[in-house]
Amino acid sequence: MLASKWVYLVVCALRRGRMRNGELARRLEGITPKMLTQTLRILERDGLVRREIFPVIPPRVEYELTELGQNLAGLLTQIRSWSEEHVPDIKQARARAEANQEAELQAQV
Amino acid sequence: MLASKWVYLVVCALRRGRMRNGELARRLEGITPKMLTQTLRILERDGLVRREIFPVIPPRVEYELTELGQNLAGLLTQIRSWSEEHVPDIKQARARAEANQEAELQAQV
Repeated sequence: MLASKWVYLVVCALRRGRMRNGELARRLEGITPKMLTQTLRILERDGLVRREIFPVIPPRVEYELTELGQNLAGLLTQIRSWSEEHVPDIKQARARAEANQEAELQAQV
Repeated sequence: MLASKWVYLVVCALRRGRMRNGELARRLEGITPKMLTQTLRILERDGLVRREIFPVIPPRVEYELTELGQNLAGLLTQIRSWSEEHVPDIKQARARAEANQEAELQAQV
């Protein structure tokens, strides 16, 4: 379930508060309407998002995080902070390893 | 990089301290020698694991987490705790949603 990029992005977007479908779509550049609906269905089914329908004309539908969803959003924020802080270190180590390998190959020539 | 199940499991196993290849293989049931070597190479290249070779006969090779690796292990532990605490809630919500859907279908018959 957590494997989907859109699950991650929808949960993060909803941290700002309840939102309508169109608002979500605007915030999530690149998501197709079908994918957004599908992601919201999954999140609702899994108890992470609550859907509220207002009986107005035309009907207004809003989505918000449940407590569990907010909790997941907190974890995702931690993962993002970790990545922002440490992924550069990983990339640096990788570049260094590749440079060393290159140097070894050169030395063998 | 984080996508691999084995990366996750090797990092978690090394939390206990430095380990030899064989010890790691025993802890990680189901990993093939090739996959273990490959995972350790990736982790070493990315600066998460340090390899130490002892000049004895036969040579002894040990692996341990770097500071960055320990840091990642901390994050992975948080993710695991979150999952252990909340995945049952998600499964429950999912089961409830499926039961409701079933009931709706029955009502329509």
